[in-house]
Amino acid sequence: MLPQTTLVLTSQVHEGGKIVAALTDMPLPAPGENDVVIAVEAAPINPSDLGLLFSSARIDDAVFAPGQVEAPVSPAGMAALAGRIGEVMPVGSEGAGTVIAAGSGAAAQALVGKRVATVAGGMYARHRVVPAASCMVLPEGTSARDGAAAFVNPLTAVGFVETLRSVGGKGIIHTAAASNLGQMLVRLCAAEGIPLVNVVRKAEQADLLKGIGAAHVVDSASPTFREDLRQALETTGADTVFDAIGGGPVLGTILSTMEQVGRAAAGAYSRYGSTARKRAYVYGMLDTGPITLPRDIGFVWDVSGWLLFPRMEELGPEVRARMQARVGQDLTTIFASNYKTQVPLSRVLDEDVVRDFTRRATGAKYLILPQE
Amino acid sequence: MLPQTTLVLTSQVHEGGKIVAALTDMPLPAPGENDVVIAVEAAPINPSDLGLLFSSARIDDAVFAPGQVEAPVSPAGMAALAGRIGEVMPVGSEGAGTVIAAGSGAAAQALVGKRVATVAGGMYARHRVVPAASCMVLPEGTSARDGAAAFVNPLTAVGFVETLRSVGGKGIIHTAAASNLGQMLVRLCAAEGIPLVNVVRKAEQADLLKGIGAAHVVDSASPTFREDLRQALETTGADTVFDAIGGGPVLGTILSTMEQVGRAAAGAYSRYGSTARKRAYVYGMLDTGPITLPRDIGFVWDVSGWLLFPRMEELGPEVRARMQARVGQDLTTIFASNYKTQVPLSRVLDEDVVRDFTRRATGAKYLILPQE
Repeated sequence: MLPQTTLVLTSQVHEGGKIVAALTDMPLPAPGENDVVIAVEAAPINPSDLGLLFSSARIDDAVFAPGQVEAPVSPAGMAALAGRIGEVMPVGSEGAGTVIAAGSGAAAQALVGKRVATVAGGMYARHRVVPAASCMVLPEGTSARDGAAAFVNPLTAVGFVETLRSVGGKGIIHTAAASNLGQMLVRLCAAEGIPLVNVVRKAEQADLLKGIGAAHVVDSASPTFREDLRQALETTGADTVFDAIGGGPVLGTILSTMEQVGRAAAGAYSRYGSTARKRAYVYGMLDTGPITLPRDIGFVWDVSGWLLFPRMEELGPEVRARMQARVGQDLTTIFASNYKTQVPLSRVLDEDVVRDFTRRATGAKYLILPQE
Repeated sequence: MLPQTTLVLTSQVHEGGKIVAALTDMPLPAPGENDVVIAVEAAPINPSDLGLLFSSARIDDAVFAPGQVEAPVSPAGMAALAGRIGEVMPVGSEGAGTVIAAGSGAAAQALVGKRVATVAGGMYARHRVVPAASCMVLPEGTSARDGAAAFVNPLTAVGFVETLRSVGGKGIIHTAAASNLGQMLVRLCAAEGIPLVNVVRKAEQADLLKGIGAAHVVDSASPTFREDLRQALETTGADTVFDAIGGGPVLGTILSTMEQVGRAAAGAYSRYGSTARKRAYVYGMLDTGPITLPRDIGFVWDVSGWLLFPRMEELGPEVRARMQARVGQDLTTIFASNYKTQVPLSRVLDEDVVRDFTRRATGAKYLILPQE
C-alpha cells in the first residue's frame, strides 16, 4: 500500500519580501503509466539547491519554528524572484532511493525493487513520483549514500572536460577547487591526462588536494599567489578557467596572469595585448558580487556563463550519452562524494542545521536522509 | 627624385614612466621590389591610434615643446607597456595618398600615380613605403579625405555584421553609437535589414542618429534609460551587444535588461535565469575601468573581447574578401567618415591640438594632412 501523503521540503516566496521554507505533508500522486514511486533514501544539498531553497534571503534574520523557516529578502533580491511569488516549490535536484511502486508500463515495472538515482527535482521528500526514464539504476550493492549525487557534480566535472575539448582548450584552471566537484575533477583530469591548475583559498584545502594527487595547487590567500599561478600556467599551458565564484578578484587575477604569460611567450609588444586565447566559464556564484574583468587582458578572451543542462543540450546526444556512461562506470571512484553530516529530512529545518549548511563552506556538504 | 628623409610622428616609452611623442625627420627607405612609396595626404586619428601614441599617459601633466610632447605614465600603466620600452614606434594605422614611386615588381609599378588607401601602419608621415599588396586603389575621383579611413571603421562595421551572422544573432545593440563607426553601422544595418539599437549618452547624439535615419536610439543619461532600452529590445529582438566602452555601468545594464526581457518572454520562473542567449563583444575601452557584469543575467551569456584583424582571420578568406569588396563599393555612402578638424602633420603635437583630440569626444574626430 502506498502512503496517501508524504513529507516534502518546499520553498515559497511571499510578496512583501520573505521566503518561507517548510516541511509539509503533501498528497502523494498515483504514478502514471511510465512513472515510478521512489522511497527516497539520500539526497545531497548542492549549492544550486540552496539557491532554490533560500535564494538571497538573510538567514541571520530568519525566524525559526518547528518545520518552518521564514527569512527576509531584500528588494533587489525580490526583483530576481518575481517569477516565483506564491508558488510552493519542492526542493532537491537529485537523490537516490528504492523503487517501491510503478505504473503499468514495462520500463517502469522493470525498476520495481531496484535502487535508482535521479535528477528529477523535488528529492527532499520521503517519497517521490518521477518518470522511469529519468532514473539511472545504480550498480548492484551501491548504497543510496554513494548514489545520491550521481548527476549534478559528476556530470559537471565531465561537462567541463567535454567543453574544454569542444573548444580545443589545453588545460583547466579550476577555482574553489577543494569542493566535492573539485576533488572529482582532480581524479577525472588525472585519468584523462588533462593538465589542471587548482585554485583554493586556504592552506588546508591545498593539502587536501595534494593528498589526493593534485599536481598543481595554488592558494589565492598566499602572498605569492600571482607568481605561483604564473608558474603553474607556464608549466601546464592551461588556458580555460572554470570558475565557481563569480564575484571578487580571483577570476580577474587569473585572466590577467594568463595574459601576462601570453605576452611573455609572444615576445614582441602589441598595443592590443597577446593573441593567446583566454577562456573562462563561470558556473557558480559563491560570491554573488559582480564579475569583474580588468582591462590588462588584451582583446582575445571569452567569458561565458556555464550551466550544466543547457550545455549538455549544446554538446548533443552522442556526447550526452558518453557523459552519462562515464559517470555510471566510475561512480564510487572518480565521482565519489564526501559529506560532513547526514541529517534526517525531519530535522533539516532545525536552526543549528540551517545555520550550518547555509554557510556553503568547503568540506561542509550535507546529505539528507528522508527515511530517517 | 625621392626625398632622403621624411617627417614622421613617433611614440616612445621611456623607462621610469613617460611617453615621448615626437615629429622627427627619419630616413625614407628605398622601396623593395614589391613596395610602393606613398605621399600620404590624409590619415584619421582613430581611438586605437591614440592608444599607441599616448597609451594611458596623463596629458594633463604633459610637457609640450616644439614637435615634442612628454607625458607621464603611472606604474600600473607602465606594466602594460613593458614590451615597448625604448622602441621608437611610428603611429597611424591607416591613411590615403598618391603613389609617387614603386619597386620594379609589376603590381607595384601598376600603382604609380594612383591614389590608394592602406592600413599598413606608420601613416602619420609625409611619405611611407608599404607593400603594394596592402594597398586598395581608390575609385577614380575619390579624395584622400574620403579614402583616408577606408579600413578600420568600415571593416569594423562590416565585421560586426559578419560576427552577428556567424553566431546566428538576431540584432545588434551598439554603444557609443554616435561615433563615426556608429553612424556607418546605422547605414549598414539599414541596408542589410538588421535590427539595431543605438545607445548614446547625450540628447544631441540621439538627435544626430535619428537625423540619419536610426529607428531605435536610447540615451543612457536619461532617467527612463532602462525602460526605453527594454522597449527597444522587445521591439527589435536584438541580442548581441558591440560595446566600445568596457568600463562603467552601461554594458551590465544592457545585459541585465536583456535578461529581464528574456525572463518576461519565458513566463515560468527558473532559479538559473532565462535561456535567452545574451552575447556581448567588447571592442573598445573608452572607459578603461574594469568590465563589470552583474549576476542578475542568468547563466546563458557570452562576453568576449573583439579585435578586428584577429576576428577577420577567424572568419576566413571568403568572408574577408566579401568584407573588403563591400567597403570598396560603398566607401563614400555607407562608410563615409566625418571629421571635426583637419590638421597639418607639422601641427599635430601643438598643445591645443593634443588637448583637444585626446578628449576622445564623439564628433571630435581629427584628420591629419601630412602634405600641408
